Amino acid sequence: MSLLVIGTLALDTIETPYGKEEYTLGGSATFISTSASYLTKDIRLVGIVGHDFPQKELDFFKSRGIDTSGLEIMKDQKTFHWHGVYHTDMNQRDTITTDLNALAYLNPVLSDKFRQTEYVCLGNIDPVIQEKVIKQIDKPKLIMIDTMNFWIEGNRPALDKVLKLVDIIMVNDSEARLITGENNLFTAAKKIMEYGPKILIIKKGEHGAMLFNENHVFIIPAFPLEKVFDPTGAGDSFAGGFMGWIDRTKDLSFENLKLAIVFGTVMASLSVEKFSLEGLRNLENDTIMKRFKEFKSITNFKDISL
Amino acid sequence: MSLLVIGTLALDTIETPYGKEEYTLGGSATFISTSASYLTKDIRLVGIVGHDFPQKELDFFKSRGIDTSGLEIMKDQKTFHWHGVYHTDMNQRDTITTDLNALAYLNPVLSDKFRQTEYVCLGNIDPVIQEKVIKQIDKPKLIMIDTMNFWIEGNRPALDKVLKLVDIIMVNDSEARLITGENNLFTAAKKIMEYGPKILIIKKGEHGAMLFNENHVFIIPAFPLEKVFDPTGAGDSFAGGFMGWIDRTKDLSFENLKLAIVFGTVMASLSVEKFSLEGLRNLENDTIMKRFKEFKSITNFKDISL
Repeated sequence: MSLLVIGTLALDTIETPYGKEEYTLGGSATFISTSASYLTKDIRLVGIVGHDFPQKELDFFKSRGIDTSGLEIMKDQKTFHWHGVYHTDMNQRDTITTDLNALAYLNPVLSDKFRQTEYVCLGNIDPVIQEKVIKQIDKPKLIMIDTMNFWIEGNRPALDKVLKLVDIIMVNDSEARLITGENNLFTAAKKIMEYGPKILIIKKGEHGAMLFNENHVFIIPAFPLEKVFDPTGAGDSFAGGFMGWIDRTKDLSFENLKLAIVFGTVMASLSVEKFSLEGLRNLENDTIMKRFKEFKSITNFKDISL
Repeated sequence: MSLLVIGTLALDTIETPYGKEEYTLGGSATFISTSASYLTKDIRLVGIVGHDFPQKELDFFKSRGIDTSGLEIMKDQKTFHWHGVYHTDMNQRDTITTDLNALAYLNPVLSDKFRQTEYVCLGNIDPVIQEKVIKQIDKPKLIMIDTMNFWIEGNRPALDKVLKLVDIIMVNDSEARLITGENNLFTAAKKIMEYGPKILIIKKGEHGAMLFNENHVFIIPAFPLEKVFDPTGAGDSFAGGFMGWIDRTKDLSFENLKLAIVFGTVMASLSVEKFSLEGLRNLENDTIMKRFKEFKSITNFKDISL
């Protein structure tokens, strides 16, 4: 097994109704790789940081078995910094500042080892860079990308090129509508799969997620939580749980893809219960499996006949 | 088994993006009793109509095994008439007219037979009348009520009295927030169960439904449909499927309540695929079971261990 993760590494300042943290570890690649590390091994992290990126966080990645040799450290730049404030309704947030810093120079050249990766998870970054990374992988078994409205509206031609090269795309409901112009999510889903990806995940925030392939659909709620402390990284923790399970099992049957988005949901729910990455710092198998079983009892029901 | 259903019987004028029907059979009691009739027998319908209520619809109820002896027919009044127009986004609708007509005189006096009913489903009507009906039932095993924002805001004291007398309440998400002042639905759910009902259903429209008792939660999506022809009666078809299953099985374990809201979902999905009551006019067991199995594959997943 091997899973390559590329995306952002950030030092975030986050304010939620429950508190504030400054310059705390964040970024899509951080959440994806950490989340996946609870399900699979041999994770390869690709990204860029500045001179201020804490050594203890590099050590943390290593402690999770994550290969950080693809992490470029720029001596003359700071790390990407995002400052966001969540409203009482945590579906709403304002961005105070986005300092790209080192991220502006991201242009990964993969090592020979990294080129031989089976599974690839491309976090939400410029589709031009997503394409460059894809072309460096030798014979990937499966590529998943995340994207967002910024790229859908800002560089659609580049995104369209990437869509033809990937197997799975993950978007949220408003992005699915934006990318297709369709209001009904089932109609939108069919259209997105015509653009290239054979598998589609639509995230619906508090309403859960949907998984599609050509012939099947699977729909799950979010894990019910009375308090969400910090939604930052929820989608990336979801992607990490999903790809971690895929890489662990190497089984692309729809029944197994179902389990992958269940693990995505489980990891996302553990992530948002604490600030920034804290919810994913130090998990036991038992904690993950307890939540899996709880989720199964919340969503599954008996078979009967009339 | 026996199930008493009280609510409205209407002749509706409905416009959706797919067409218009005038003076077509509608009303909460109509959808609840018809939906339940596919799952259980001995359904007792209580309501009021005018002289213009078609004999063929009375015959239809009888053909479904529904006892219409509790249906009052007013010779000098017309039947309740509602005229609604759905937008392209069918979650939005405008009411053009609401002519109460005979409904203004609803004040049911139950026959001796009807007083001996085990299960009771009180459709969305004035809580004062809901209470009057409850007090006429001898020893009900279980009472479920539906209500709406109109009564929550318009006669809260009467609603609060009813809540102390019932076992299950069904509301939608905005009503759950309105009735408790809580934004988080899980917090709202706990509060509603403190008002009286031990079991709560929160409907979330296209996002499905949630079932709660003191210790458990169960969450399901709506059945995925590309086209909804007419959402009228969806919630009542849901209630009918739910109570029909309860009356059929007489099992109040949480595992069986799960199945009840699954049948609610199944019946609602069959209802909205056609105009007014047409989707529920003539169903086969096989059609219902096919949809049940499809829904199971859309929502259930395998067990595993890490």
